[in-house]
Amino acid sequence: MLKKYRLLSEYKGPEDIKRFGEEELKELAQEVRDYIIEVTSQNGGHVGPGLGVVELTIALLRVFDPPEDTIIWDIGHQGYPWKILTDRKEVFHTLRQYGGIAGFLRREESPYDAFGAGHSSTSISAALGFRIAKDLKGDESFVVAVIGDGAMTAGMAFEALNNAGHIRPDRFIVILNDNEMSISPNVGAISTYLNKIISGHFVQESRQRIKGLLKHLGETPLRFMKLTEEFLKGLISPGVLFEELGFNYIGVVDGHNISALEKTLHNVKEIKGPVLLHVVTKKGKGYPHAEEDPVKWHGVAPYKVESGEIIKKPSPPTWTSIFGKAVVELAEMDERVVVITPAMREGSGLVEFSKKFPSRFFDVGIAEQHAATFAAGLACEGMKPIAAYYSTFLQRAYDQVIHDIALQRLPVTFAIDRGGLVGDDGPTHHGVFDLSYLRCVPNMVVAAPKDEQELRNLLYTAVNSSLPFAVRYPRGCAYGVPVEDFESIEIGSWEELLEGEEVVVLATGYPVYQALKAAEKLYKEGIRIGVVNARFVKPMDESLLEKLARKYELFITVEDNTVVGGFGAGVLEFLSRKGILKRVVNLGVPDKFIEHGNQNLLRKIIGIDSDGIERAVRDLLTKKTLEY
Amino acid sequence: MLKKYRLLSEYKGPEDIKRFGEEELKELAQEVRDYIIEVTSQNGGHVGPGLGVVELTIALLRVFDPPEDTIIWDIGHQGYPWKILTDRKEVFHTLRQYGGIAGFLRREESPYDAFGAGHSSTSISAALGFRIAKDLKGDESFVVAVIGDGAMTAGMAFEALNNAGHIRPDRFIVILNDNEMSISPNVGAISTYLNKIISGHFVQESRQRIKGLLKHLGETPLRFMKLTEEFLKGLISPGVLFEELGFNYIGVVDGHNISALEKTLHNVKEIKGPVLLHVVTKKGKGYPHAEEDPVKWHGVAPYKVESGEIIKKPSPPTWTSIFGKAVVELAEMDERVVVITPAMREGSGLVEFSKKFPSRFFDVGIAEQHAATFAAGLACEGMKPIAAYYSTFLQRAYDQVIHDIALQRLPVTFAIDRGGLVGDDGPTHHGVFDLSYLRCVPNMVVAAPKDEQELRNLLYTAVNSSLPFAVRYPRGCAYGVPVEDFESIEIGSWEELLEGEEVVVLATGYPVYQALKAAEKLYKEGIRIGVVNARFVKPMDESLLEKLARKYELFITVEDNTVVGGFGAGVLEFLSRKGILKRVVNLGVPDKFIEHGNQNLLRKIIGIDSDGIERAVRDLLTKKTLEY
Repeated sequence: MLKKYRLLSEYKGPEDIKRFGEEELKELAQEVRDYIIEVTSQNGGHVGPGLGVVELTIALLRVFDPPEDTIIWDIGHQGYPWKILTDRKEVFHTLRQYGGIAGFLRREESPYDAFGAGHSSTSISAALGFRIAKDLKGDESFVVAVIGDGAMTAGMAFEALNNAGHIRPDRFIVILNDNEMSISPNVGAISTYLNKIISGHFVQESRQRIKGLLKHLGETPLRFMKLTEEFLKGLISPGVLFEELGFNYIGVVDGHNISALEKTLHNVKEIKGPVLLHVVTKKGKGYPHAEEDPVKWHGVAPYKVESGEIIKKPSPPTWTSIFGKAVVELAEMDERVVVITPAMREGSGLVEFSKKFPSRFFDVGIAEQHAATFAAGLACEGMKPIAAYYSTFLQRAYDQVIHDIALQRLPVTFAIDRGGLVGDDGPTHHGVFDLSYLRCVPNMVVAAPKDEQELRNLLYTAVNSSLPFAVRYPRGCAYGVPVEDFESIEIGSWEELLEGEEVVVLATGYPVYQALKAAEKLYKEGIRIGVVNARFVKPMDESLLEKLARKYELFITVEDNTVVGGFGAGVLEFLSRKGILKRVVNLGVPDKFIEHGNQNLLRKIIGIDSDGIERAVRDLLTKKTLEY
Repeated sequence: MLKKYRLLSEYKGPEDIKRFGEEELKELAQEVRDYIIEVTSQNGGHVGPGLGVVELTIALLRVFDPPEDTIIWDIGHQGYPWKILTDRKEVFHTLRQYGGIAGFLRREESPYDAFGAGHSSTSISAALGFRIAKDLKGDESFVVAVIGDGAMTAGMAFEALNNAGHIRPDRFIVILNDNEMSISPNVGAISTYLNKIISGHFVQESRQRIKGLLKHLGETPLRFMKLTEEFLKGLISPGVLFEELGFNYIGVVDGHNISALEKTLHNVKEIKGPVLLHVVTKKGKGYPHAEEDPVKWHGVAPYKVESGEIIKKPSPPTWTSIFGKAVVELAEMDERVVVITPAMREGSGLVEFSKKFPSRFFDVGIAEQHAATFAAGLACEGMKPIAAYYSTFLQRAYDQVIHDIALQRLPVTFAIDRGGLVGDDGPTHHGVFDLSYLRCVPNMVVAAPKDEQELRNLLYTAVNSSLPFAVRYPRGCAYGVPVEDFESIEIGSWEELLEGEEVVVLATGYPVYQALKAAEKLYKEGIRIGVVNARFVKPMDESLLEKLARKYELFITVEDNTVVGGFGAGVLEFLSRKGILKRVVNLGVPDKFIEHGNQNLLRKIIGIDSDGIERAVRDLLTKKTLEY
């Protein structure tokens, strides 16, 4: 695959980059782009972010000496050029495949990947840790964090800037990679501020302000305008905000001009104290389709290179789109329904909602903590907020869920997308802890639908419940079951879908249909198992559980969540509380981080698909009791 | 109790404040201070914060009309004057007592308490929610958030400012209550920045900068210096940082001058767009002891009013002080040991460490997210970071624990103080979720010591383990057992403290000694129970558990953590995995938020003290099996 790339096929590593001339560097940049497009067109992945930082990656490798110098890429989804140009060009085609290299940077994968990530805004904190440790050891190598403008709006990045600006370490460089874009277009005051800098409006505005002042002072001073403008250059740094935080601000540099970047980076290395270097890049640079629609091309499925057409297999609508449609309907029915997202308008299926109800839609930027407590405030004043999160990003708002919402019993609905194994994005994105970390919070209702109509009904129930309510659903396609009017579901009620003998399977969310499939297969062999849709993980259907305990000897629980403290543990806790002794097998995600790979493949490997459930039933029937 | 206060005894509510004259207001302020001192000297509590905002509270009640106008106090530990002057003067003496009023503001307690808190930095987010909801409803009343300078450094506050500065709502006022102090003295670039404003250094520095510039330009321009200074006033707002975030900055106002405050607040009400009002107050104002040592007087135990002497009962050292001493010793033994705290130097017992090892001590300010990932970065470079958190504050860093530390298997030691029920501070501070939310995270070691020597040994083990390791211990006094040299403990190993018949109690942390006490009492009646110190919640001592399962029929687990998904659930999961059917009773914190009150009283009420354990044993022995 690499053969067709003249320079890349012979490329040995960063030492080559250092000796390449200007023309070779340009050619290399082009080859890296072509290679990224070739591989992602087949494997899918984050196209835009990587294409945007090809020149920056090259410049960093020319000016610095990683891994001795530490380069930390925030989130890491822009790390494809880095992977190719450090030490993974040979395996880059395995990107995001099971057993292949990851879609994000990972310490385990390469010594060049100083700090792994997948969630945003961690790089400055980590980099400061590297810096301080190096200082304590007397290590004078550099530490560089590259962070996007979207990631910069997160509270965590601010906390790190505040701390670094106080400590003021040398050889500490934060590169603000400003493409005016996180995953959705950026929002927030910081974003406006950065735009003002880039467009030159900052200095223009300051000039206007001075002119106004001078007018007040009378005619004479107007003569000194020219002089005043000179002052301005020194007085009003466009990076005043960062300078007030203790950083030296350098900007704005064209992030696609390798020699300009290189020159600036060399200068920056000489500056005492922490530096914020403001670089402007274009997401998707060099691939016209991606340049045109950077939101769509942030991350994509496999596509045709020429046309930019995404290769879609005919499939039922996604859970995300079912959610997106449902919230529009809910908002039409009740004007108190408002929706909050921390920078996930597209990913959470909220584009239509944002267009139909702009005044009731709040994209707060990458600000998971704020999003939750903002929703809490809205709920206090009688609104019915739906806060849309990806499961693993909700981990960022855990304290707010407990302290601001559950403790005050405020009716916030959490719509949790990407629950369970997400597939290609891997361990940073698998939403396999939410049932555990939410179940232990008092006052919370935690539910997972078996199919799309139940998702609709649970959302409807949640919004009208006056309770803190989490509805959690998987990534990917639903089943294509017909979508009907909303119906309220009794909170805590389960559904007995199949009656059986001896064995009953209690499944929640995705595994419900898998359990039915397993039951069907077993039925053909005369094995009749019960199947229950345990759509509420909390509260559980205790009366049904007691009834089941009278009827069945053997229980299997299935969830696409860790088995530690999850739904299955809840069943064990209930039986224990009631003094009911039954053999129970908990199926779910084992207590380890799960690698990336095809979503259904991963489900099969950990045994929560129909095969796994079938196997568990057979095992249980052969080993009904173990004696001690 | 109120009789002795001339104005307060007759005081009817905020409508009185509005008609009082200047002299009466002064007298009222004095009475409020005296009353707060009288009550806190008996009950303990947050003395300094409340004394600092008496005039601000009065001014707010004169200018605004709560509860129609929404006033949100960040954290709420400065809410004593608010409680007294709104509607709780009669019950204020029950402060922090079981069944009495809470030490923080609470929605359940009063319509004046618009938003409850206990953790910092939530007020701006919540206020923005109130504001937007009011706007959607056409409600033109005001929304005011009062937030301290310490709380302002948290990422969450920044996220909220960024969002509010983008939305730019009217009738939205953030009062920055600047006392140059969070709980510990403030750190961070923001703090430096605010200090520069207050001291006038901001404008001075800008002047110097101009002078320098002018010199470069030659002699002539020096004549225009006077003019330039005029420009400056308009050009360089001391609040430039907030202005860049979209706020109108007004400051600095003396927070102890009621009429100045009142006048400014009236003006602020007329300003379009969001306002940041910078007020300077003195923590502990009016009580000389508290003014002198505001860190100590942030929150205190009962004290003698005249001398300011804290009334101490002779008692063993606290868990906190044992930790503080241990980390000094660990740091002496190994220069790689570094300590990080998010603004809890005093509370976490780190004063001595910070003095002995200033270059290895990092108070990062109220920045829980950053603190964890900063520690992760330090670990990457070979340091042995100990991150000291209060249990409930670690909830703020949950994603960082999972995504930055556990996933990368980085050797960060979390020293978790205030695990379990904390007592008087109540539900916002009870650390009763940590065992559950940490246990479900792969790669984590989670441990809880039975006594102070075991705390030392676990810390020693953690620091030398190369693993993500949480050591969790309670608030309050330990047992006074003799402190010895460090000893390593095998990870995952439990201790069989007592052998018994039929019933075995598995306890973790605080309840271990309670179980021994119960066993002693039962022994006198001929009932011999086994007692096991389950010091590792994760991993568990599986071989011992199997052995116990062969020996005992009845199991009791005890933890000062929620029974949902906690240690007891872990035991159930293990037995289920092994197919072992045993009757198990899980004692712990029930699945609801626990009110404030005396720590031991609360433990007794929920049944995790020796009486509760004894009762559970008796119950279990009389109802060994339940039939279904």
